[in-house]
Amino acid sequence: MRTAAIVGTGLIGTSVALALRAGGTATHLIDIDPVAARTAEALGAGTTEKPPDVVDIAVLAVPPTQVAPVLASLQKQGVARVYTDVASVKSLPRREAEALGCDLTSVVGGHPLAGGERSGPLIARADLFEGRPWVLVPSEPTSTLALNCALELVALCGATPVLLDAETHDRAVAVVSHAPHLICSLAAARLLDVDESVLRLAGQGLRDVTRIAGGSPSLWADILAANAGLVAAVLDSFAADVLEAADGLRQLAHGCDEGPDRVRGGARLIESLQRGADGRSTIPGKYGMRETAFSAVEVAVGDSPGELARLFADVAAVGCNIEDVDIEHSTDQRAGRVRVFVVRNRVHDLAAQLRLRNWVVQGS
Amino acid sequence: MRTAAIVGTGLIGTSVALALRAGGTATHLIDIDPVAARTAEALGAGTTEKPPDVVDIAVLAVPPTQVAPVLASLQKQGVARVYTDVASVKSLPRREAEALGCDLTSVVGGHPLAGGERSGPLIARADLFEGRPWVLVPSEPTSTLALNCALELVALCGATPVLLDAETHDRAVAVVSHAPHLICSLAAARLLDVDESVLRLAGQGLRDVTRIAGGSPSLWADILAANAGLVAAVLDSFAADVLEAADGLRQLAHGCDEGPDRVRGGARLIESLQRGADGRSTIPGKYGMRETAFSAVEVAVGDSPGELARLFADVAAVGCNIEDVDIEHSTDQRAGRVRVFVVRNRVHDLAAQLRLRNWVVQGS
Repeated sequence: MRTAAIVGTGLIGTSVALALRAGGTATHLIDIDPVAARTAEALGAGTTEKPPDVVDIAVLAVPPTQVAPVLASLQKQGVARVYTDVASVKSLPRREAEALGCDLTSVVGGHPLAGGERSGPLIARADLFEGRPWVLVPSEPTSTLALNCALELVALCGATPVLLDAETHDRAVAVVSHAPHLICSLAAARLLDVDESVLRLAGQGLRDVTRIAGGSPSLWADILAANAGLVAAVLDSFAADVLEAADGLRQLAHGCDEGPDRVRGGARLIESLQRGADGRSTIPGKYGMRETAFSAVEVAVGDSPGELARLFADVAAVGCNIEDVDIEHSTDQRAGRVRVFVVRNRVHDLAAQLRLRNWVVQGS
Repeated sequence: MRTAAIVGTGLIGTSVALALRAGGTATHLIDIDPVAARTAEALGAGTTEKPPDVVDIAVLAVPPTQVAPVLASLQKQGVARVYTDVASVKSLPRREAEALGCDLTSVVGGHPLAGGERSGPLIARADLFEGRPWVLVPSEPTSTLALNCALELVALCGATPVLLDAETHDRAVAVVSHAPHLICSLAAARLLDVDESVLRLAGQGLRDVTRIAGGSPSLWADILAANAGLVAAVLDSFAADVLEAADGLRQLAHGCDEGPDRVRGGARLIESLQRGADGRSTIPGKYGMRETAFSAVEVAVGDSPGELARLFADVAAVGCNIEDVDIEHSTDQRAGRVRVFVVRNRVHDLAAQLRLRNWVVQGS
């Protein structure tokens, strides 16, 4: 891949450009906002000069609803041999491209699973996609040349290609990303109903649950709108579950204390909660391992500079790799409890070694 | 406080006993399971011998539905001068105690906000309540003696007392704890509907959101059942929000592309998401500060023992205290990105100092 046009120089577009530059590809940066394009240029992501010739690939890093019109315009100008995009929704852009009469033989939709709550070229980096899944959704007309070119792009970005059809992709992200985001936002919004003083009673659980509700409202509205039908279907099923649970609870609230209805209601509630625990355990953790492959050693840590460093140095001295860290602290607490996750078979040894080094370690 | 009876030697009861022992109070351990009581005794939490005399306070650390019957039985035996409990629901036990004819002058309900997903005496510790809020819900008949005795208990455990009425307490925990727990369980259960292979597309957000769904189903069923009416009310409002959002999305999916309905639908969606972000920002962070008082420095960290230790040592060397840590890694990634949260006004300095020490630091 000798030449590429990056259309849209936000976080994803600029990061793709940086990765391609690092691999020696000549990148041409295009953005309707000339300041954004020049910012990406200043970061070393390529040149804002027009490509002198047809480029090997054009990467459309624009919002989902802009993919089809931008594609149509680029194809009309004959900018590239192959076109791909990075939108987190895949069916809508394809339908719109078809409606606009685009030539789909040279097109492969894509979706790199990277980025976070923030956006813009300033936080772009060449390694943003390193080791991440990058979904490609070739359609029936897609040529082998186009697919291979997209696979090369993914490889140059250090990502792992995942081939899916557009419908499967959109259904999956509706369940694992789009619907959970909206659900968390709606749950967090409920907190506006209570007096702020009682929010002191909130624990770490609530902070975890509502974290993603902090994402950009306008960006997420775009994503949700582009996958609206499938997200609505997930929300419908979910709302039905919530209403059923509410009914079950109301029966428990009004039922006689020890009657068979109460017992049945309690059993149904336990079953719902168990299904939640089962659903949670299906999420792959780091390296695709189930999270249960790791266990935590819980350590009390003082609230002064260097305490965590001392702890982590001691963990390293034992030869343990830290897979994850949880720091738990509540409203008024000056000292924290740190959960250090390591591979399961190192837990007992690590706990013993930390105790020898005078750490207050909880549990087994 | 010279003598106390701890009734129920699970995580909370045993931790209370350990804290009281550390303060010099003689503690008598009672549990319907003699093995649990002897385990707590072996941990140094007190004696399993019967108190020779009336104790100063009895702490009922039993499930919500057991509080009233146990209270009635203890009062009949004249075990203590003052009684309190630690159940996470407060109205139901009081109503049941009244119905059983208990003497409420000597009773103050309580709820220490501590503990986590795990339970049992083995993970108990004297400092479990250190700096945590501990709600007390005196009722009209509660004597000043009883309230002062409960306040002394809270002080001996190192917790911060918060006086509330039972109804306010139950409404607050329904919103900040009980309903979010069930919502997350139901959301996590939805993951059972999708093919496990597409769960590769799950990101850190989904892991955060579903974390609390990993709690004990039977323990949470007990808690939810005891606060069933108020939790059901929260779920009803929430389900209505979800259904409204689903309707809005369906209109977006079927509406014409650029019509005024679509614009209005998009605006409503942004507003919902904004309310979620606002709700999230009302949760107090560490020390009661809003979370926004802290900012993150994001650093790329290799996946070998000692990398985190080296990073944290460098942060400490700069004199920064780490307030929180996020480690982000996806399915296939061998290197992590660590977000180190520090007080906002240290962020730029810390980022600069870490860059000088050859760390790859993102953002400003």
